[in-house]
Order: sequence, then structure tokens, then C-alpha cells
Amino acid sequence: MTSEFKVSNPDYAETVRASFGRQGLMHTLGARIVAIEPGWCVIEMAYAPGLSQQHGYFHAGAIGAIADSAAGYAAYSLMPAGAEILTVEYKLNLIRPALPPTLRAEGRVMRTGKTLTVCRTDVYRVGPAPGGSAEACALMQSTMMRVEPAA
Amino acid sequence: MTSEFKVSNPDYAETVRASFGRQGLMHTLGARIVAIEPGWCVIEMAYAPGLSQQHGYFHAGAIGAIADSAAGYAAYSLMPAGAEILTVEYKLNLIRPALPPTLRAEGRVMRTGKTLTVCRTDVYRVGPAPGGSAEACALMQSTMMRVEPAA
Amino acid sequence: MTSEFKVSNPDYAETVRASFGRQGLMHTLGARIVAIEPGWCVIEMAYAPGLSQQHGYFHAGAIGAIADSAAGYAAYSLMPAGAEILTVEYKLNLIRPALPPTLRAEGRVMRTGKTLTVCRTDVYRVGPAPGGSAEACALMQSTMMRVEPAA
Amino acid sequence: MTSEFKVSNPDYAETVRASFGRQGLMHTLGARIVAIEPGWCVIEMAYAPGLSQQHGYFHAGAIGAIADSAAGYAAYSLMPAGAEILTVEYKLNLIRPALPPTLRAEGRVMRTGKTLTVCRTDVYRVGPAPGGSAEACALMQSTMMRVEPAA
Repeated sequence: MTSEFKVSNPDYAETVRASFGRQGLMHTLGARIVAIEPGWCVIEMAYAPGLSQQHGYFHAGAIGAIADSAAGYAAYSLMPAGAEILTVEYKLNLIRPALPPTLRAEGRVMRTGKTLTVCRTDVYRVGPAPGGSAEACALMQSTMMRVEPAA
Repeated sequence: MTSEFKVSNPDYAETVRASFGRQGLMHTLGARIVAIEPGWCVIEMAYAPGLSQQHGYFHAGAIGAIADSAAGYAAYSLMPAGAEILTVEYKLNLIRPALPPTLRAEGRVMRTGKTLTVCRTDVYRVGPAPGGSAEACALMQSTMMRVEPAA
Repeated sequence: MTSEFKVSNPDYAETVRASFGRQGLMHTLGARIVAIEPGWCVIEMAYAPGLSQQHGYFHAGAIGAIADSAAGYAAYSLMPAGAEILTVEYKLNLIRPALPPTLRAEGRVMRTGKTLTVCRTDVYRVGPAPGGSAEACALMQSTMMRVEPAA
Repeated sequence: MTSEFKVSNPDYAETVRASFGRQGLMHTLGARIVAIEPGWCVIEMAYAPGLSQQHGYFHAGAIGAIADSAAGYAAYSLMPAGAEILTVEYKLNLIRPALPPTLRAEGRVMRTGKTLTVCRTDVYRVGPAPGGSAEACALMQSTMMRVEPAA
């Protein structure tokens, strides 16, 4: 993806990966960043029984978690060094069964302002077929806020 | 809480707990149901480093996960025996820092129809103070769908 | 409603009403403020054919409009004199048919911060007779931002 | 836009336009359909003082109204003759000032099922001159439900 965004932190990729490494939940879910570019972040998560809802699909909460992190790091990639970021809100639609083997959340920045950044994230099933199509199984729209780090 | 809802499955509590027991993610997060009544479900989750975002708070994804399950089981408690339930969509606002030691998600049904059920869930920090107040740290509004079980 | 909120603009009611008076859309919709207290605003709108969707109910867009303004002015009532306010985002669930004769949107502040305010708004059908109950027909959850006035 | 959707009502365009014509609110707002294709609907609305919020921009409620109708008719275009449609919920982010002279809401279907259809709608400022760019000023994600017509 070619980005139209201006980067203010030349080390954004390392900054994002270091922050992601501190997200204990991402480690618990087995999620990992597979791409990070200015305003764009992709996170993948392989299926495990510990991620399921009652029918054996990925739980909507696990989907929301990687979609939220993908959006957050897409936004964070555009922030200056030293900035911190928090999620203000997110909204997720589950539109197809979220089946194994792997989900991929692609977060992208739609608008970045001084304080707030708005993102859309598409979550896809990936992997060997059947069901390994590129059709989205979930759609998120969300808002992030840049906050000053605590002294 | 006194409920105004009519129960169609007299064994709703057992049905809910059995379904919850099949949600691998709830086990992974250390979440448990602490109350289930018609149209009302409370889930608690104690803090662990594996639930964190980058600043050590509960990750918004973990908050969303228990809020979604609380809403889902509030809705499911009103469905007839044999019905299945899926999340259509949820929207979460993070309004205060989600700090240890424990979060409590209280899901309640706002409207139940033949196919769709709409819920609101409030997530509170609980536990010995400071910060152990009853102020909500997150608010969810969500939609559930009753589906026919696969043959 | 007794408010727990601290008022910083002693003339908040006049400030809110003056701002509302500049909202051309509220005049177009025939909407009016029927209550304003700290962190709380109620707007009513009587049915007219020019507010309908295709079945003759109130259009979801008209419902969203008064719910958004009710939330916005609930939030604005807590802001200092001279502040300005913008809607960041809102999410609306339509849960019962929005029938004549009148809708009432009750917006209340759930959390107010330095920059952002989060509100919930319940929209009720009011009026004499069948359907004139106090059951909500729509639920909103939304975020407002305080902005500095343009110089 | 080339559509991947299968049409079940060959007269979908006339059906959509007839339904739109019964939406009194669209007439009140001065909105009109400028494009309708399978799974895709574009609505435009020219600025008028009666559509404003307190700063003279388009009111978020007017933006939500045309975005909701664009999504609804994108969804409705794929439904069989005789079906009816209702909005279940919508979520709108306001991301840039919604300035005159004209807004264009482009609604598209992201997923259509037997009962529910999920859409995304982008709202753009259009028109000559400063601000007449193709940058989105609002983003919606929403859910529609097919309902059986009342007998």
C-alpha cells in the first residue's frame, strides 16, 4: 500500500513494535504484526481453542481485540516520537463466520487530526481454502486519541 | 435486579452457563459469570499481565470481550431452549482508565424481538480502593441475533 | 433529575438555548428543548409528514438528529463559557417503531473529560394513547469534543 | 462502479426511487438520489440554512440522515420485489468540517444475508472551490433488516 501520510517519527515501525510487545493481551491471543506502514497496520492471529466462542468460531471479543490493535497502531505510526495513544471507542460488525485457520486485521487511518484519529479496520479469514477467501468477516470503525505521556 | 422479562426456557441459567463454558476465550481471559438473571448477566475478570495494553491497563479488546459475552448471555437468557445466538455488532466507548484489580461487565437487555435483541453493557472497576469505585470505565451498546441451530 | 455535575458556566442554560437557536436543522425539524440541566438535555419533536421514512414513521435520520443535539447540549451545559463543541461520533439503535405523535430525546452525560464527553441518549415515544408509552424507541451512545473557538 | 451483486428485483431502481419518494424527510432536506446500482446508492444534498448546526456547517443529524438513506437504498436494491427494509442501527464518525455547498453520501453494501445487510457509507463534500475536494467528511457503518410487509 502506498501511503499518502506524512511520517513525523522516522522510527515509527520500531516504536509500534515495541509498544505492541508490551500488550500482554496480544501475546495471550497469539497475535503478531505482519505489516506496519504509515497509517496502515496488519495483525494476524492463528486459531486456537482458547480463542473460541461457543460454536468454535473465533470469539467476537478476540476479533475486536486484534482489530482495535490494528487500528491503534495504524494511528500510532503517524504520531510523533514520545506520544501515547488510547482507544476512545470502536464499533465492530460481524458479517461472516470467523472460522479457522487464521484471521488478518487490516487497520488503516481515514483521518488524522491534532488529537483524534479515525480508522477503519477490515478483518479477513486467510489460509488454505475452503473458506480461505479474501472476504471480510468483520468491519470496524474506531476513534483513537493522542495523549501526553504521564510525567 | 427485578426483571420485567418473561422467560421461555426455565433452565436458562444452566443453558447460559453451559454455553459460556464452551467459550474458550472466556477461559483464556479468566472471566467468569457471577450473576445470570432473565435479561441480565454479569461477568468478572481479574487483572493479569496477559490482559494488558501497552500501559498496563486492561486492553480494550479484553474489555470488549467480556462486555460482548455479558450482553450475549443477557440476551440468550430470554431465548427458548435450543436457540442459538450470534453477535451482530457492538460499539464500545472507553471512558475511564481500566485499572486493576478487577473488571465487572453488567449486560442488560434493552429490547428483545423475534430475531434481534439490543443490549447495553456497563463495565466497572471493582475491588479494594483506590479506584475501586462503582464508576463505569466502559460502555457498550450492541445487537444480538437469534439463529436456528445448524441441523 | 438531580445532577452530580459541577457547572462551570453559570449561564449554561442561556448559552445552550442560544446555540440551539442557531441550529437551523432543529428549526426545520420542529424540535425544541424542553429541559436543560447540568449534564442533561431533553428535546421534543412533533410528527409531521416531512419527518417520515417510507412507512410513515419518523425517519431514523430525524431521530438521530434530535438524539445528537440532546447529547451535544447535555455535554455543552458542562463546558465553560466561550467553549465550542463538535460531535465526534454517534451510534444509534432503532429498537421500536418510532410512531407519532411525538418523540422525546433525553441526552445525559456519562463521562466528561478535558477534551471529550461521552453521552447516552434515550428516545421515547410520548403522547396520548396507544403507543404513548415510556418505552424507548431508540438508543444512542456518542462522543463530543470541546474545541477552542476560532479566533 | 461495477457490482458483484446479484439482483433479484429487475425493477430495483424504480422500486428504490418510489420508496425514496415516500421519505418525507428526504424532501424536507432537499436530498435526491443521483445514482442507484445494485448494492450502491448515492444521495446528494445542497446546503441550506435550515440544515445547519450552530456554526453554520451541515448538522450531524442531516449528514446521518442522508448517509442512512444511502445505505438503506443500497441494501434495498438487492432485495426481492415486495420486501420491506428497516434500519437496525448506524454509527457515524464526523471527520472533517461538513461545509457547503453540497454533500454526497455514497452507500455501499458490504455483506448481504437472508435477514441482515451491512453497509458502509462515505460522505463527501462536493462542489466548486476551496473545500470542494473528494475527501470524506463523515463515515458510517450500519445494519439494515429485511422485514415482511404488514399484511
